[in-house]
Amino acid sequence: MAEEVSNKQVLFRDFVTGFPKESDMVLSTGTIRLKVPEGSKAILVKNLYLSCDPYMRIRMAMTDFAIDFPPFIPGSPIIGLGVAKVLKSGHPDFKEDDLIWGKTGWEEFTIISEPKTLLKIKYTDVPLSYYTSILGMPGLTAYAGFYEVCTPKKGEYVFLSAASGAVGQLVGQFTKLMGCYVVGSAGSSEKVDLLKSKFGFDNAFNYKEEPDLNVALKRYFPEGIDIYFENVGGSMLDAVLLNMRHHGRIAVCGMISQYNLEKPEGVHNLLYLITKRIRMKGFEVVDHYPSYPQFLEVTRQYIKEGKIVYVEDTVEGLESAPAALIGLFTGRNVGKQPSHYYHKQTFKKRGCYYCKARIIESRQ
Amino acid sequence: MAEEVSNKQVLFRDFVTGFPKESDMVLSTGTIRLKVPEGSKAILVKNLYLSCDPYMRIRMAMTDFAIDFPPFIPGSPIIGLGVAKVLKSGHPDFKEDDLIWGKTGWEEFTIISEPKTLLKIKYTDVPLSYYTSILGMPGLTAYAGFYEVCTPKKGEYVFLSAASGAVGQLVGQFTKLMGCYVVGSAGSSEKVDLLKSKFGFDNAFNYKEEPDLNVALKRYFPEGIDIYFENVGGSMLDAVLLNMRHHGRIAVCGMISQYNLEKPEGVHNLLYLITKRIRMKGFEVVDHYPSYPQFLEVTRQYIKEGKIVYVEDTVEGLESAPAALIGLFTGRNVGKQPSHYYHKQTFKKRGCYYCKARIIESRQ
Repeated sequence: MAEEVSNKQVLFRDFVTGFPKESDMVLSTGTIRLKVPEGSKAILVKNLYLSCDPYMRIRMAMTDFAIDFPPFIPGSPIIGLGVAKVLKSGHPDFKEDDLIWGKTGWEEFTIISEPKTLLKIKYTDVPLSYYTSILGMPGLTAYAGFYEVCTPKKGEYVFLSAASGAVGQLVGQFTKLMGCYVVGSAGSSEKVDLLKSKFGFDNAFNYKEEPDLNVALKRYFPEGIDIYFENVGGSMLDAVLLNMRHHGRIAVCGMISQYNLEKPEGVHNLLYLITKRIRMKGFEVVDHYPSYPQFLEVTRQYIKEGKIVYVEDTVEGLESAPAALIGLFTGRNVGKQPSHYYHKQTFKKRGCYYCKARIIESRQ
Repeated sequence: MAEEVSNKQVLFRDFVTGFPKESDMVLSTGTIRLKVPEGSKAILVKNLYLSCDPYMRIRMAMTDFAIDFPPFIPGSPIIGLGVAKVLKSGHPDFKEDDLIWGKTGWEEFTIISEPKTLLKIKYTDVPLSYYTSILGMPGLTAYAGFYEVCTPKKGEYVFLSAASGAVGQLVGQFTKLMGCYVVGSAGSSEKVDLLKSKFGFDNAFNYKEEPDLNVALKRYFPEGIDIYFENVGGSMLDAVLLNMRHHGRIAVCGMISQYNLEKPEGVHNLLYLITKRIRMKGFEVVDHYPSYPQFLEVTRQYIKEGKIVYVEDTVEGLESAPAALIGLFTGRNVGKQPSHYYHKQTFKKRGCYYCKARIIESRQ
């Protein structure tokens, strides 16, 4: 008979309209048997790091907005990306003690019935939390979004919004490695300082202190913008359209300013798509998973050579998770801060194999 | 001493805000000497057909909106595309009696000081007016916009707005020749009939009779839209975004519903660019002029084989030009109707070499 243990969970309470609140999530403790269903190809994992990402807001609404983002199920755990360790496996591709990253539940233990979308973690010479950030979905988003969607050329002028977030900070550094000029916007002076001092942006500004975003962009891009990496939408996009150069490219990664509005803001300057021959392309990182091995090699090498740095913002424990997710939308977090707690068997540092899951916040 | 003749002109009165009126243009008669300035590379042309195109509205405003569309100069003739005959040439590439199409003035005679952007007309086995329409700028716009910007595949679902216009009617026929399913919207039942009966669209609807464009599109595209050829903007674009399929493409050719608004309508559904991975690309036909020879061969062949038909809407005489241009924005015209008047030396039909210029309307 398999051992039965308690399983702390963050349950989704009910569908959200407007701004999400911590109380839209409920902490609960159930029990779970540490085994996989007889004859199934499921795996049982212990969750180590869980990720807060902006797209999760979409899943909190009762909407058929996107097939990739079906609504969460009220009363069931929040679903998100995480790093986990395989405890039991009914699947030939996974065995006990494998480390994986991919879609899992906001709980201590999760039975993943279709593990084929999970990625195995080969390299443990980096913090495991990196697989929720720089070496995980946000990292691949930055890599694919910049190199594959923006088709950048050396010397081009690049603007990023939400630049200090999980994706933005990495796009900015890829941009510099490519030999481009890059300016980022963020929502606090602390983030602006980080962009300039830590991530090597050519410049950065706090959009909340700019009464006119068009004027701000003209200040930083007197020659105009070749590439805009879009994370926020709304009035920023309108201001960017005014400042794009001919044949500019906009990679639409996210529109975080719009996710909590009942009706998204109108964007008025789309006529410039024509006169400036702009290509605007929305993308989802899942389409770019075939690039993951290449991305992983390139980015690990950059990390080893010290050419890329990364900041994580970590909170400890499932009970802190709802506040961490809500914080994404208030701009409280700064990048992703490395956790001080690692799986002891992997890193022989603090923390216990069976301790609480870690929550990593990302903000695009 | 060169002969001095009278030169009827349509002058631009002053910058326009809101809806343009006929009185924004003024009919005037000056004189001109039939020669080019001594030592210059200018050419003197007799204008035969002049074209009314939606983009001209942009040039009626005092705006730096687009470098390709600088404002008209108050007191000077309206500038547009046309078919003309060379009377005098100081340029080595042009000689007397050459037929050309390109940028000229709304007047009987024009001195074109930089003729290098003009194209010489090689084939006169089609109505000359075709070089303002199916074999001119609107034709190349349809060809490049569809084949080069939309990257269509056989069997895809295609939607066109302003489908009976100069560009739309041709895009629709290219679409059918490619083996796609095509539905067009237009603003009158007469136009809708034309799309279905003459241009071979699979279906068409009158957008003015649809209380909910989203519902209308769902009716014609239960499987969704792969390609949208955008000519109107505003609420139609919002409805289309709701109905696009994954990896759909939007070629932004024009946004005629927006040109007369002081502030363009807001577009609210851009979030779907991300979830549906949509590529939205604005384009200007001038970037596609290198494709003109190929387009000309392909399209002439289609015309010869009867695989493409074309409808022009022509009015006679410069004095009718202001009303024709305004008519573009009220939806009065239907496609482009073949003129009954041709240059007598070319077609030996009615009309006189020195008679009034013909105005061809196009509506995107």
